[in-house]
Amino acid sequence: MSTNGWVAVAGLGPGDEALVTPEVMAALAEATDVVGYFPYVARVAERPGLTRHASDNREELDRASHALDMAAQGRRVVIVSSGDPGVFAMAAALFEALENGPVDWRDLDIRILPGITAMLAAAARAGAPLGHDFCAINLSDNLKPWPLIERRLRLAVEADFAMAFYNPRSKSRPEGFAKTLKILQEACHEDRLILFARAVSTPEESLRIVALSEATPEMADMRTMVIVGSSQTRLIERAGGPILYTPRSTG
Amino acid sequence: MSTNGWVAVAGLGPGDEALVTPEVMAALAEATDVVGYFPYVARVAERPGLTRHASDNREELDRASHALDMAAQGRRVVIVSSGDPGVFAMAAALFEALENGPVDWRDLDIRILPGITAMLAAAARAGAPLGHDFCAINLSDNLKPWPLIERRLRLAVEADFAMAFYNPRSKSRPEGFAKTLKILQEACHEDRLILFARAVSTPEESLRIVALSEATPEMADMRTMVIVGSSQTRLIERAGGPILYTPRSTG
Repeated sequence: MSTNGWVAVAGLGPGDEALVTPEVMAALAEATDVVGYFPYVARVAERPGLTRHASDNREELDRASHALDMAAQGRRVVIVSSGDPGVFAMAAALFEALENGPVDWRDLDIRILPGITAMLAAAARAGAPLGHDFCAINLSDNLKPWPLIERRLRLAVEADFAMAFYNPRSKSRPEGFAKTLKILQEACHEDRLILFARAVSTPEESLRIVALSEATPEMADMRTMVIVGSSQTRLIERAGGPILYTPRSTG
Repeated sequence: MSTNGWVAVAGLGPGDEALVTPEVMAALAEATDVVGYFPYVARVAERPGLTRHASDNREELDRASHALDMAAQGRRVVIVSSGDPGVFAMAAALFEALENGPVDWRDLDIRILPGITAMLAAAARAGAPLGHDFCAINLSDNLKPWPLIERRLRLAVEADFAMAFYNPRSKSRPEGFAKTLKILQEACHEDRLILFARAVSTPEESLRIVALSEATPEMADMRTMVIVGSSQTRLIERAGGPILYTPRSTG
């Protein structure tokens, strides 16, 4: 095994190039290979000496093994994620592949390069809804049973966390988000505020803030980040658009 | 009121300049005034045309009002936060000042510029401990009563979230983290993994991963981010240092 190869798992942020860190740009500039889901690989410019390997969304473990294998052969490989690679993205998949792969992979130089994750980009655009204690839940039940998601939702309401939901509506499981809204509408006051932030930092960005009683499943699609305020989350009305924020103090 | 002034609340990330976004650098380049806690203002280089206003840690609301007032006079003001301004930082303080201030402040151009928050920088250095559902809790009881923190801790354990703790040990309330560890040691299995990540991305960076039963309050100080794994969080041992990660699947 060559010792010059490495793997970096890099977060490209929510979409805008101005939100990509210099650390990530430097890794991409040194890479021989970029690996990832099609739309993320498409965000990396072609150049001589760089091979781009795009794959489908459900192939995280194969992609991770491919990256580790190329690094073991001496290549400099960047796995690209949107947002932050450590939040419902490729970093955990890489370590699953590492743990179950050839033992000499553990000698590889592996780095996780953080990025601006979707909930923080969405929160920044809307105000500061995550300014007090909060939780982040992946609503996809692709990798966990629905009853566990439901249990977490109820406990998060009881703890009065603000809640950030990743993957609210996937093509294959559109009904999960309707169930989520129903649980929240039963457990929370009807005035509880909810943010639908779609395609944040891209030309298609749109934000919508409604009371929980008015929220419907169709307000979220695969590109939407959903943030539900805590009981303390407030709205400041103004001509330029409302500001959603959670005060630092609880009373 | 001049209409040319603006306020941006900018996240400087955990310390390394390579983790500051181009968006934040651009705002700093256009600013006439930079406002913030001493050590964060010190991270912004002096230049002609820029006035730096450094203040103490407990003066968030005064600082926010000062920034809004300067923007209303036509100045271009950046409030600097470490990490991400929306996570236990200056964004919520700014909106508290806005809500309670003169109504014409609501016409100001206000932007929140996200940054790499401490928990994501720490997670990236250690592996991917936040790769599944997680929560973020500010352990400072400066702005909320201790019983609420304790209640959230117990519910977070019940929900089996990984947990990221900000401000585990402040000078004025060092006993809070000892109480936190005691609650966790009673509620979780003794093998539960806990990360102490100090001064991540700076020359003083140090990481320590121990079983919860071996954790002591002295392992955290004011510059430490603490991440407690969920019941599923695992360690991969290797010569280059252990990797802490939470698999995407719940088993």
